[in-house]
Amino acid sequence: MCGVFGVYNSKTPAEDTFYGLYSLQHRGQEAAGIVVAEYDENKHKTIYRQHKGMGLVAEVFKDPAIFKKLPGHAAIGHNRYSTTGASKSTSNIQPFSLTYRSGNLAIAHNGNLTNSRTLRKELTERGIIFQASSDTEIIPHLAALSKEKEPVHQIYHALRQVKGAFSLVILANDQLIAARDPYGVRPLALGKTTDPDTGDAIFYVASETCAFDILSVDYVRDIEPGEILLIDKTSIRTHKPISLYLPPSKRKARCIFEYVYFARPDSLVFTHSVDKIRRNLGKNLARESMVEPSNDDKHQIVVSVPDSSNTAALGFVRESNKICRPARFEHGLIRNHYVGRTFIQPGKQSREIKVRSKYNIIRGVLQDRQIVVIDDSIVRGTTAKMLIKLIREANPKEIHLHISSAPITNPCFYGMDFPTKGQLLTYLFADTKDHDEEVEKIREYIGVDSLKYLSLQGMLNSAPRFENETQSYCTACFTGDYPISMDDATTDKEEYDNEE
Amino acid sequence: MCGVFGVYNSKTPAEDTFYGLYSLQHRGQEAAGIVVAEYDENKHKTIYRQHKGMGLVAEVFKDPAIFKKLPGHAAIGHNRYSTTGASKSTSNIQPFSLTYRSGNLAIAHNGNLTNSRTLRKELTERGIIFQASSDTEIIPHLAALSKEKEPVHQIYHALRQVKGAFSLVILANDQLIAARDPYGVRPLALGKTTDPDTGDAIFYVASETCAFDILSVDYVRDIEPGEILLIDKTSIRTHKPISLYLPPSKRKARCIFEYVYFARPDSLVFTHSVDKIRRNLGKNLARESMVEPSNDDKHQIVVSVPDSSNTAALGFVRESNKICRPARFEHGLIRNHYVGRTFIQPGKQSREIKVRSKYNIIRGVLQDRQIVVIDDSIVRGTTAKMLIKLIREANPKEIHLHISSAPITNPCFYGMDFPTKGQLLTYLFADTKDHDEEVEKIREYIGVDSLKYLSLQGMLNSAPRFENETQSYCTACFTGDYPISMDDATTDKEEYDNEE
Amino acid sequence: MCGVFGVYNSKTPAEDTFYGLYSLQHRGQEAAGIVVAEYDENKHKTIYRQHKGMGLVAEVFKDPAIFKKLPGHAAIGHNRYSTTGASKSTSNIQPFSLTYRSGNLAIAHNGNLTNSRTLRKELTERGIIFQASSDTEIIPHLAALSKEKEPVHQIYHALRQVKGAFSLVILANDQLIAARDPYGVRPLALGKTTDPDTGDAIFYVASETCAFDILSVDYVRDIEPGEILLIDKTSIRTHKPISLYLPPSKRKARCIFEYVYFARPDSLVFTHSVDKIRRNLGKNLARESMVEPSNDDKHQIVVSVPDSSNTAALGFVRESNKICRPARFEHGLIRNHYVGRTFIQPGKQSREIKVRSKYNIIRGVLQDRQIVVIDDSIVRGTTAKMLIKLIREANPKEIHLHISSAPITNPCFYGMDFPTKGQLLTYLFADTKDHDEEVEKIREYIGVDSLKYLSLQGMLNSAPRFENETQSYCTACFTGDYPISMDDATTDKEEYDNEE
Amino acid sequence: MCGVFGVYNSKTPAEDTFYGLYSLQHRGQEAAGIVVAEYDENKHKTIYRQHKGMGLVAEVFKDPAIFKKLPGHAAIGHNRYSTTGASKSTSNIQPFSLTYRSGNLAIAHNGNLTNSRTLRKELTERGIIFQASSDTEIIPHLAALSKEKEPVHQIYHALRQVKGAFSLVILANDQLIAARDPYGVRPLALGKTTDPDTGDAIFYVASETCAFDILSVDYVRDIEPGEILLIDKTSIRTHKPISLYLPPSKRKARCIFEYVYFARPDSLVFTHSVDKIRRNLGKNLARESMVEPSNDDKHQIVVSVPDSSNTAALGFVRESNKICRPARFEHGLIRNHYVGRTFIQPGKQSREIKVRSKYNIIRGVLQDRQIVVIDDSIVRGTTAKMLIKLIREANPKEIHLHISSAPITNPCFYGMDFPTKGQLLTYLFADTKDHDEEVEKIREYIGVDSLKYLSLQGMLNSAPRFENETQSYCTACFTGDYPISMDDATTDKEEYDNEE
Repeated sequence: MCGVFGVYNSKTPAEDTFYGLYSLQHRGQEAAGIVVAEYDENKHKTIYRQHKGMGLVAEVFKDPAIFKKLPGHAAIGHNRYSTTGASKSTSNIQPFSLTYRSGNLAIAHNGNLTNSRTLRKELTERGIIFQASSDTEIIPHLAALSKEKEPVHQIYHALRQVKGAFSLVILANDQLIAARDPYGVRPLALGKTTDPDTGDAIFYVASETCAFDILSVDYVRDIEPGEILLIDKTSIRTHKPISLYLPPSKRKARCIFEYVYFARPDSLVFTHSVDKIRRNLGKNLARESMVEPSNDDKHQIVVSVPDSSNTAALGFVRESNKICRPARFEHGLIRNHYVGRTFIQPGKQSREIKVRSKYNIIRGVLQDRQIVVIDDSIVRGTTAKMLIKLIREANPKEIHLHISSAPITNPCFYGMDFPTKGQLLTYLFADTKDHDEEVEKIREYIGVDSLKYLSLQGMLNSAPRFENETQSYCTACFTGDYPISMDDATTDKEEYDNEE
Repeated sequence: MCGVFGVYNSKTPAEDTFYGLYSLQHRGQEAAGIVVAEYDENKHKTIYRQHKGMGLVAEVFKDPAIFKKLPGHAAIGHNRYSTTGASKSTSNIQPFSLTYRSGNLAIAHNGNLTNSRTLRKELTERGIIFQASSDTEIIPHLAALSKEKEPVHQIYHALRQVKGAFSLVILANDQLIAARDPYGVRPLALGKTTDPDTGDAIFYVASETCAFDILSVDYVRDIEPGEILLIDKTSIRTHKPISLYLPPSKRKARCIFEYVYFARPDSLVFTHSVDKIRRNLGKNLARESMVEPSNDDKHQIVVSVPDSSNTAALGFVRESNKICRPARFEHGLIRNHYVGRTFIQPGKQSREIKVRSKYNIIRGVLQDRQIVVIDDSIVRGTTAKMLIKLIREANPKEIHLHISSAPITNPCFYGMDFPTKGQLLTYLFADTKDHDEEVEKIREYIGVDSLKYLSLQGMLNSAPRFENETQSYCTACFTGDYPISMDDATTDKEEYDNEE
Repeated sequence: MCGVFGVYNSKTPAEDTFYGLYSLQHRGQEAAGIVVAEYDENKHKTIYRQHKGMGLVAEVFKDPAIFKKLPGHAAIGHNRYSTTGASKSTSNIQPFSLTYRSGNLAIAHNGNLTNSRTLRKELTERGIIFQASSDTEIIPHLAALSKEKEPVHQIYHALRQVKGAFSLVILANDQLIAARDPYGVRPLALGKTTDPDTGDAIFYVASETCAFDILSVDYVRDIEPGEILLIDKTSIRTHKPISLYLPPSKRKARCIFEYVYFARPDSLVFTHSVDKIRRNLGKNLARESMVEPSNDDKHQIVVSVPDSSNTAALGFVRESNKICRPARFEHGLIRNHYVGRTFIQPGKQSREIKVRSKYNIIRGVLQDRQIVVIDDSIVRGTTAKMLIKLIREANPKEIHLHISSAPITNPCFYGMDFPTKGQLLTYLFADTKDHDEEVEKIREYIGVDSLKYLSLQGMLNSAPRFENETQSYCTACFTGDYPISMDDATTDKEEYDNEE
Repeated sequence: MCGVFGVYNSKTPAEDTFYGLYSLQHRGQEAAGIVVAEYDENKHKTIYRQHKGMGLVAEVFKDPAIFKKLPGHAAIGHNRYSTTGASKSTSNIQPFSLTYRSGNLAIAHNGNLTNSRTLRKELTERGIIFQASSDTEIIPHLAALSKEKEPVHQIYHALRQVKGAFSLVILANDQLIAARDPYGVRPLALGKTTDPDTGDAIFYVASETCAFDILSVDYVRDIEPGEILLIDKTSIRTHKPISLYLPPSKRKARCIFEYVYFARPDSLVFTHSVDKIRRNLGKNLARESMVEPSNDDKHQIVVSVPDSSNTAALGFVRESNKICRPARFEHGLIRNHYVGRTFIQPGKQSREIKVRSKYNIIRGVLQDRQIVVIDDSIVRGTTAKMLIKLIREANPKEIHLHISSAPITNPCFYGMDFPTKGQLLTYLFADTKDHDEEVEKIREYIGVDSLKYLSLQGMLNSAPRFENETQSYCTACFTGDYPISMDDATTDKEEYDNEE
């Protein structure tokens, strides 16, 4: 998973992109980069400058002097998620910047291409060299090989050839281009302010709208699935970017996991409030829930795994109370907010100290009570197991674990960094005869008194329905139903990797 | 404010202290240090080694190789809070380590001495030199000048001479000493585990019990006000440290602000659960509250300023509902947890971007609703003002700000890093005729529809009463009633400061 | 100017390359990088790993842990010289590593291509994208577009298309390739040791033989002008690399400035001892010299500008004494060897403090004497002027400046980092009527009693004559006679530069 | 060994001290620090600010922003030599800065006290605490305990009590004090310029005069043995510092090793040119020498170990030729000047790679010739042995090693960082019957055809004779005759060390 950001016609594009990336930090903590475009009036050409590095945005851009070296009128930025081995390479830090026959290009990508292996092979056979192992490098190669003259048409040409999930921000000479795949897998939003001096528009593009909020920018609309949006000199005067459209897909495949866990609750994603949908997930979980309050407690104590499950837990409590199953929201787990990327664990390398370093319990809240723990999802299961062990230390009467999504059974090939199938907790219990037995075995493994996953239908009911769409969401990680063709999708990227 | 930690008879004292300081990080983010004692069997003497640095614990101890260079059987550590100018000096990073006539000594201090100027003057007149500007350096000087032979008696002798607030952990040759002033201003707790191989005790001392939880250590009891606790070779076999007592004070003066804001909710402080007391503060705030629900809302929406006010907000909601003033707890503010010490703000140096970088609003929760914002305290008022402005962007119907403590009117001379009196928000409105007018003016300044502070009595009612004590808490910052004599207390430390 | 190094069949290729680059540090101080190839027996493929950075070799590879992450059987490395603006980019740090249709490739280049603009334009028109601004990137593109199957033949194909100066070390999958342009502009030498365990050969390639000395490796021979040398699994058993040859050039164009200044005196360059030729330059300078010893001195005092002119000064003194012009070599200037790349000059940004920070005078040696200062060359003239001013402070009777090369009048387009024509000292006096007047004006500018440049013929007489060659050396910077066609040669690289 | 520097009445005291320390870098590479005094007119007091760190001066003061934070009118600085274990502590980095009854004090020390153990014990018994393990901390303690009122008299009082070697620069409030022990063991020089605006004097104090040269400051005279020099506000107007004198010692004990090896040749040390004396050492070595030129060589080839032996080698050659033993100075060894403090040696930890990383041979100069290698001294002998092995690779006919000092047989207790007696090469052969047999065994060990040390008398004849002095130099390391009483001198400092 990654975060992308772009800005056009700002006097401080590097600073704006810094704040944008900073607010999108949750989408990727491994590396960050900014490319800035400055138009040189005299030479009638655009100069690109960049700064990239491994680490959090605030670490990579620690030195304020960096911003002095990044003047310009437009910029794009990228947060990279921590991914598998090969991508540790610094040569993979985006945005990816280059020169080609039509000038300068820089590209930042959220998503994953599914025909990259085939395209890479074809390009390679034609004599193209690749410097990084990321899918993204394919797109500028295709653009550069296009017969089109205008960069935006070259990009259009390139994107018609790629399959998979992509939300892109691109600098092409002095222009800014934003694009989203026809399935609409990853979010991408358009924002705008008005320059008080000139009355011109300043445009922004971001993975989530929380990046607009930090800059006091207004959210305009989403980049639509299949839309390629061109922002240039004219756009800023007319306040209108120009749109091209890729051939539409039969269905849409918005990633439902963005709502479940990934996006920030204060963002609009796919035009809807994440907070509201996450609350719905909690409400539907309450409706499907089966834990009867114990006789001697007036209320169930509902505890969220902070911070990602807070909203679902609130929805759960509200709905529980509505359907006359008294519940009370409590902060029973405390999260240590100084856990950072650079956190080392000397001496004790176990997962236990990792969990204890991140969470602690409030004994008074948990002791002798019937506890319902709300978590958003279970991936490997190791953290959940340790967390339950930690809660047990408070001697609760019962622990019921409710998950506000369905069991994850399949890897994601569209940009979410799940482990391989074999590393998912469900894989351990894949040979059970039915869902109930599987859940029972997982319950036993994690060590709770009961375990409840939200049903797939419950998830879909929680999210908005888009008009005239037969299918709006991708649920592949829960169902194995992959909406985009999967010929090249493979987790074995190693063959063309150079490690660094 | 600072955090202190000590461990005796561990095989990994440096690592333990790392985790202890890590969990006490909220007590001081400016600098961190560890001193480890290793007893050399052959030479019958103890060697001290140390590592210190500016920054967060995880930054200062980033390199795992540091721990290899810090073997031993005992250690102490210190987190320093961000304080005023002069203390930016690296020579002020604690623990403070030295040699003197009886061997090695290292000391870490949470608190502030109130007769340091007089003592420093006396010592200086006797020809003593000072290398740092901290109060703490006075204590080992007094110990070294004592006629006593045993380090613990020298420390006793020294502590009889100092006035003020101190919770201390001290390494004296191969021994560990913990001490707390007779007023009990700052917390200090004793923990213990048993070495599975030898059956010997391993002892721990920490500012808060959350430092024991991370290490799976059992909380034993508090170091009592006026107690000097000696942990040595004998103690680990008998499982009994030895106690000495300073002359008792007439009253106790536990810092009530530890409960209001400073301590972590998952800690026991002064033997009681911070979470529970913070919840009481919220309940009492609800009882004293006067905001009537608006006619057309079924519930008031209660929003906490995360994370410090979460617990008080939950208590507030519960009590409100009990007294039939329907209220609902909501996460209406999101906190960005990547705000770290190293966070720079390029370009826009205003407080507005600082607030926006730390918090964002959930519009759906706030829009068109009657909002009650619970915050723990108001110091300068600038953040509160900006935060309310941010919430206003969601167009709530009304904003009512409830503070779960009384107005802060006076500086702290016992270790809390409040600004000077002139920088407190209340100073702006000091010439108002009565409390009501003052609150009204502050309400206007911050820009809310109503403002309510918890009364002093409400605060005291929220905290536990200690038997046989006429007064258990220090409330000086709310009342100006300073329990410990204040002759030397001054904010002007500059005269003996060497900056670095 | 740059340094390149390669090793094949070593158990410690990264460490070997580190020492190689370290000893070639004088050829480039701006950046350094190593790429290591490890053959994976199981997968029958080669994995490349790399580490690069800005700064001196010892700085970039400061952390010993780096070497643990760079296992393999072969490696190449590169030192980059401090060059103009655009190349400050980290994306330009070599070796340049990539994947293409035949697998992995990594390339390190010393030299400069003269038809790079044309080739880049052609490639760009075909849709090729460029990520860095260096010439070097062209070569792998050409190789990747070749119809050949074997990497070495692809490289051959590519090198037939490029013009200019190149000494290359290349990793192609598990093979090592070394190549040198048909003119032989830059040096490249082959070294060898024998693995004591297996009897197999271990091969080394380096810009200068001093890189072999540090590793106790035997110098075998030079890579010949136009030779492409392939070292593979077979070579190590047979102790024989395989050679291909590019079409020969009519003349050779070895850079004579390598002998004058650039190479280390302890190296063999172009198969000959740099020390010996530099000594010859000094001898021929003495023969052409015209300073008569002053009457009252028994000896001229000959002082070199340390360390680059030491050898020429010794040759000068020996020849002077032979032709009965008594001279004595003295250390009259001391060089401060702590001047490093990171040296800052607070407060006084003048060139004077730069010169004073680097050199100091020995008054006793210089005072009241007739001084002959030997320097290897004058480029901009500013350092020479300041140095003479410094020597004047010792009150010598006379200062005669003798330069062991001819006046530099033209920029180098083959890899030497001279400034543009307009920045050369000779440009200031370009409109003088003849050589004598020009030298007189320079003498006056620098402020010496007499100035003598070695003649071009004197330089050529100092260097070895290669059999059957009409012209062996490039003297373009002294004469403007550029041996390799110059269509694209331009210092304006800016148009395809992305700054970082 | 260390370097000290002080400046008074400069507008840029921190920058001046930076350049001073930079030019004294050879006297200590382990750590560096600067303390600056700024007089606050309004408060009538002086504020001290400092910056210190481990590493070379240019590394510690890499960030130009440091200098902006160090304004003032006076400063002192210190370079620390790499010493044994305990001193690795950052708390030992000088200058040592503190506050005491009379205000601020900062002190930088070159030398070593010989009664420090006794004094430390006495002070400790009085209840004084020590924070660092260096001798230096004793001096301010003694000053602070003095009954005197004026800092300069307190310092006088303190220095009367200490024994040993000390060249000190001290800031005392707004004054600068320089002091030298009565034996004059370590050098200390006074420099001066005139402020062009005010006509006031600007005074400088430095270990060697090369620190004056870099700043274009005039050398005035040495601080005399036993002199305490006070520079204050009056001095700058009168251009006259005030002098106090410690009781004179019967003899002087200037360290002769400063001339042999330690000082820079371009410095005046003990009022005399180091270059000249080092040249005399070479001349006297030639006079005492016994190597007969081989029959078939016209000249002996004389090679110095660069750079420290260059001057002695030139003197040797000149004298050899004078006494009709034809010799020729050659650069046969090249020194790699990129060897820095941070140099790591991955993989091969042997001394061989260390020597190869630092030196290389010029084969053409050495091959088939009779070589005389001039080195200044032999300490442990390991480097010499490896260096000779390296020279042997060039196949010289014979190698004769001439040392321009006598055999080192005893440790230095006055500040030179020699190893303990047992680590000196001479210790290996201590049981030989006479000097000749000892030299023969060392010759065999190092592996040369002949070995010659300069005699003690030869050394003393090379250095200037000071009028009216029976003994001017300390030769303890050559003779064991320690001029200053040695009661406490011990290499075992460990007992009061806290490591860091």
